[in-house]
Amino acid sequence: MKISARNVLEGKVVKVTKGATTAHVVLEVAGGAKVTASITNEAVDDLGLKVGDAAKAVVKASDVLVAID
Amino acid sequence: MKISARNVLEGKVVKVTKGATTAHVVLEVAGGAKVTASITNEAVDDLGLKVGDAAKAVVKASDVLVAID
Amino acid sequence: MKISARNVLEGKVVKVTKGATTAHVVLEVAGGAKVTASITNEAVDDLGLKVGDAAKAVVKASDVLVAID
Amino acid sequence: MKISARNVLEGKVVKVTKGATTAHVVLEVAGGAKVTASITNEAVDDLGLKVGDAAKAVVKASDVLVAID
Amino acid sequence: MKISARNVLEGKVVKVTKGATTAHVVLEVAGGAKVTASITNEAVDDLGLKVGDAAKAVVKASDVLVAID
Amino acid sequence: MKISARNVLEGKVVKVTKGATTAHVVLEVAGGAKVTASITNEAVDDLGLKVGDAAKAVVKASDVLVAID
Repeated sequence: MKISARNVLEGKVVKVTKGATTAHVVLEVAGGAKVTASITNEAVDDLGLKVGDAAKAVVKASDVLVAID
Repeated sequence: MKISARNVLEGKVVKVTKGATTAHVVLEVAGGAKVTASITNEAVDDLGLKVGDAAKAVVKASDVLVAID
Repeated sequence: MKISARNVLEGKVVKVTKGATTAHVVLEVAGGAKVTASITNEAVDDLGLKVGDAAKAVVKASDVLVAID
Repeated sequence: MKISARNVLEGKVVKVTKGATTAHVVLEVAGGAKVTASITNEAVDDLGLKVGDAAKAVVKASDVLVAID
Repeated sequence: MKISARNVLEGKVVKVTKGATTAHVVLEVAGGAKVTASITNEAVDDLGLKVGDAAKAVVKASDVLVAID
Repeated sequence: MKISARNVLEGKVVKVTKGATTAHVVLEVAGGAKVTASITNEAVDDLGLKVGDAAKAVVKASDVLVAID
């Protein structure tokens, strides 16, 4: 599947925390930065996500803000 | 200003493309990945964004999808 | 690629309108409903989207509001 | 109330799962597709959502990604 | 129509700027604050939005970030 | 830090509700309107948010819908 999102960052799952309905999945992406995704528990189960798995952080351009110091 | 977004990726502006109302700003972040932000033209002017500037890509955890091959 | 988004609606491209930076792509999905996506012009070119193509509308659960009359 | 969102899919509530703060509401929309919304528990109570209710899935065009195989 | 979004701010349209596909609509809400919405040109036409109209800014709780100085 | 989001509403924290992974933070902004943010528990801890604190609701223009009666 190819997707319209402009931002697809290759990475590895380093942490999975399931809540009552919402899970936080932390990926380590290129350069060592950590990216946190808030997704449904069903998605974690559906993708079988666990620490060590290769995974991508996918972000639509319209969901990226820019900030400067 | 400190923000609740879990994802703040340090980078540098490498491209700014203004449309009629919406601009695309591309940042090169750690590890060399490119991140595209779709923001308003006013935001580009307000932050005075231009190629070479240090800038951060800010993404709320709830706006990050996870994908696997 | 498998994605965490809970909503993946199979459909067909029925209209593509490119703006200066942002394009509107209308898909007809199951049951005949029309779904409009606002994506970047680059995404349209990258996916080579044109009328008649099979395509999916992908929406994160956290981006769906619920309304009642 | 009339809303700017381009995507308003008529449907029926088929599942409501409340978490600690976030609820997942699944609607069956035209053509039988299922759409999952992640909304606050307060919203579920405020709208009195329960299985069998008529309800609409509302999605802003800028929150729809497009994917192809 | 009643909607799940937790944030519905009553206001008045003070500016409408149409782009090629995307429009910016500025509302003045209670307390005099200005809120900018980026919506489709079709939405502006569909709602017949023009300066002086009563209108509401609707924002899902999951789209609100919090910041502190 | 200066941010591209067009909507930065000054306010005060009036309620913080932590869930299993997701917290709801309610701010009272100018004019007395209440704005609810759904953010991660980590963000609440990271910003040390508590009732009475000065805080801003930050919303990207592309995340604001417009509605009329």
